[in-house]
Amino acid sequence: MTGTRVNEERLLSRLRALGQVGRDAQGRLCRLACTDADKAGRDQFVRWLRDAGLEVQVDRIGNVFGLWRTHESTDTPILIGSHLDTVINGGIFDGSYGVLAGLEVIETMKAQGVAIKHPLAVASFTNEEGTRYSPDMMGSLVYCGGLGVEEALASTGNDGTVLGAELARIGYAGAAEPGFLKVKAYLELHIEQGPILELEGIPIGVVENLQGISWQRVIIEGTANHAGTTPMSMRRDAGYAAARVITFLHDQACASTTATVATVGSISFAPNVINVIPSRATFTVDLRNPNERELKADEAIFGQFLERLAVELGVNLSVERLSRTEPVTFDPRMLSMIEEAARRDGLATKRMTSGAGHDAQMIVRIAPAAMIFVQSTGGISHNPREHTPDPDLVAGANILLQVATRLASE
Amino acid sequence: MTGTRVNEERLLSRLRALGQVGRDAQGRLCRLACTDADKAGRDQFVRWLRDAGLEVQVDRIGNVFGLWRTHESTDTPILIGSHLDTVINGGIFDGSYGVLAGLEVIETMKAQGVAIKHPLAVASFTNEEGTRYSPDMMGSLVYCGGLGVEEALASTGNDGTVLGAELARIGYAGAAEPGFLKVKAYLELHIEQGPILELEGIPIGVVENLQGISWQRVIIEGTANHAGTTPMSMRRDAGYAAARVITFLHDQACASTTATVATVGSISFAPNVINVIPSRATFTVDLRNPNERELKADEAIFGQFLERLAVELGVNLSVERLSRTEPVTFDPRMLSMIEEAARRDGLATKRMTSGAGHDAQMIVRIAPAAMIFVQSTGGISHNPREHTPDPDLVAGANILLQVATRLASE
Repeated sequence: MTGTRVNEERLLSRLRALGQVGRDAQGRLCRLACTDADKAGRDQFVRWLRDAGLEVQVDRIGNVFGLWRTHESTDTPILIGSHLDTVINGGIFDGSYGVLAGLEVIETMKAQGVAIKHPLAVASFTNEEGTRYSPDMMGSLVYCGGLGVEEALASTGNDGTVLGAELARIGYAGAAEPGFLKVKAYLELHIEQGPILELEGIPIGVVENLQGISWQRVIIEGTANHAGTTPMSMRRDAGYAAARVITFLHDQACASTTATVATVGSISFAPNVINVIPSRATFTVDLRNPNERELKADEAIFGQFLERLAVELGVNLSVERLSRTEPVTFDPRMLSMIEEAARRDGLATKRMTSGAGHDAQMIVRIAPAAMIFVQSTGGISHNPREHTPDPDLVAGANILLQVATRLASE
Repeated sequence: MTGTRVNEERLLSRLRALGQVGRDAQGRLCRLACTDADKAGRDQFVRWLRDAGLEVQVDRIGNVFGLWRTHESTDTPILIGSHLDTVINGGIFDGSYGVLAGLEVIETMKAQGVAIKHPLAVASFTNEEGTRYSPDMMGSLVYCGGLGVEEALASTGNDGTVLGAELARIGYAGAAEPGFLKVKAYLELHIEQGPILELEGIPIGVVENLQGISWQRVIIEGTANHAGTTPMSMRRDAGYAAARVITFLHDQACASTTATVATVGSISFAPNVINVIPSRATFTVDLRNPNERELKADEAIFGQFLERLAVELGVNLSVERLSRTEPVTFDPRMLSMIEEAARRDGLATKRMTSGAGHDAQMIVRIAPAAMIFVQSTGGISHNPREHTPDPDLVAGANILLQVATRLASE
């Protein structure tokens, strides 16, 4: 089995070809979910599925499946998946690499005539990025029953469109009911989108869990007043209060013995004038931890800090929960299989936590799952400079091939 | 002399009438410099000057003067001034009170037939607020020679207009050369625009100095990265760095034994997305202190902090100086005159620092000057809720009357 290798030419040329599909007038890759650009990417994928002799199925939320079954195989496939949609001005690897590697693996196995007990399927899930419609990871969430298909189809985009109508317009409102394939195991190969593998010189990341993500919006209300005539002791400065929150969150996460990370990525002041004390500060808080108990503790410590700060500074604070996902743990046996395959290929591995969300975190609700990471140069992602060297792309696909083959043979 | 009193009916009714001139479609007071609304306010003022029998003069930068001279008086007038322009959605007292009280005082003195050695003049200076054109306090700055008249007339507004053209359009491009009146002494009566007089229950503020003002823009450059996949130790978070600066400035000013005040009123992050570590934070710093040596020390301490922070956090910092005015000290003898007048009227006084900028800080370059403050309810200004109770408005005008009378008689 270890002798079998994917067709690296084919994999890399498809990745590059797909990376040219869905560019806007400025040359930016913008395959936002259910746009014409997304349709062009899906159409290309479906052509390749058909060329490979796979059975194409589309479900009601627009997830596209390419299936290889034999007379000997059961009806519980090994599913390999990811997504083809991108952010605005995205890179060519995020999502597409996992989908095209899945296709490559199945095509290779089929060509080799591997005897399989379970069918092989590759999936491209709808709207993983969430750039146009909320929530993100929508296709996989609906597939595993975490969100009703009618509710998802009714989602209004930030451009005023309705997802269901757009899906029908581009010809990907399928007939299959989400969840129609009973998945035996799920594999997802993805670029790391972080700096760790490259910094440590390790080619293969074995993702043992996914961080839980807590998103909150904080609004602090103080009093607008003249920057010159208001003594420091009489101020209710919403901007200063926000700065105290930001430093607390950062310093607390740095001092923590857990893997918590905290980010304040967006902020605004009102009235936002050089010589007026801010009456209002609005900002977002992104807290992540791979351990649910620890994430809850982080949230509680943060909430207590806000309460103390409101009293100390005499400001009003309100917190809105924007989204919350629990941490996910992947299947230990599948993680070992990935490590064994890498060992056979002479590749070092590192167990790691994924800081980003992936379709795998949804599918793990209905099947054992695992993820494989390859290096992201400079940790850069969601950016045209997103890059993974060819040998890493090929190495990751060959690990995927081995694990899929083993799972399909059991 | 202490028996003479201004006509409070006339003063208050003019203040209210002028407060209705220059309202926009939403009812907001918007007499921005050199707009049609400003012209309407100026026209009303000029009608009142003529009604009072004063000689009207307009200089090249559009400052409007109403002059009362007698055959016995010299050519060095006592000037009472302030401004008629407002911010967007301003209050009716800021500026207008000082101008109309000046008119009221001169009209009262003239009606009483006070024997004067020096002429009396009231001035409305162009573009004190700086809302449409920079710099603020422009008319008084040009008048005292701090800015060339041609340069000021060439100022481009934030709406793309040129001040000189707008001034000509509204009919206030006068012929007199700025500085044409040789001022013997300058008086300005103004609302406090701060909370101190009201909080301490004192009706009359004797302004002994004006804060120096240091405006800077700070840009911090870090690295945008994924909020989930970037460990805390690998971040170059420009937003966190900005928060550290804001807390430092505030805490430093609170702990200072000097009268320094520090404000960060405006901020922006880039890319300003919930799940991306900010690559850039841009914010303004407003530092004020009535003592130049102390203000310089504040600036130096701030600069040293920025240098240390850049090293500590590995971010790039750049600082742009936006504006800098030195503190101003008013004439001790005139301050004593104000205190004596208040004592005669049975009014408590407080020596104070003005945190806001005023035309007086320009005119003090060419003549001894002083300012009188009256209470601002709740310290609110630049706001439709700006308010001063009628008795305080009248009391302030009567103090002004006594001091102007004494100065004119010397």
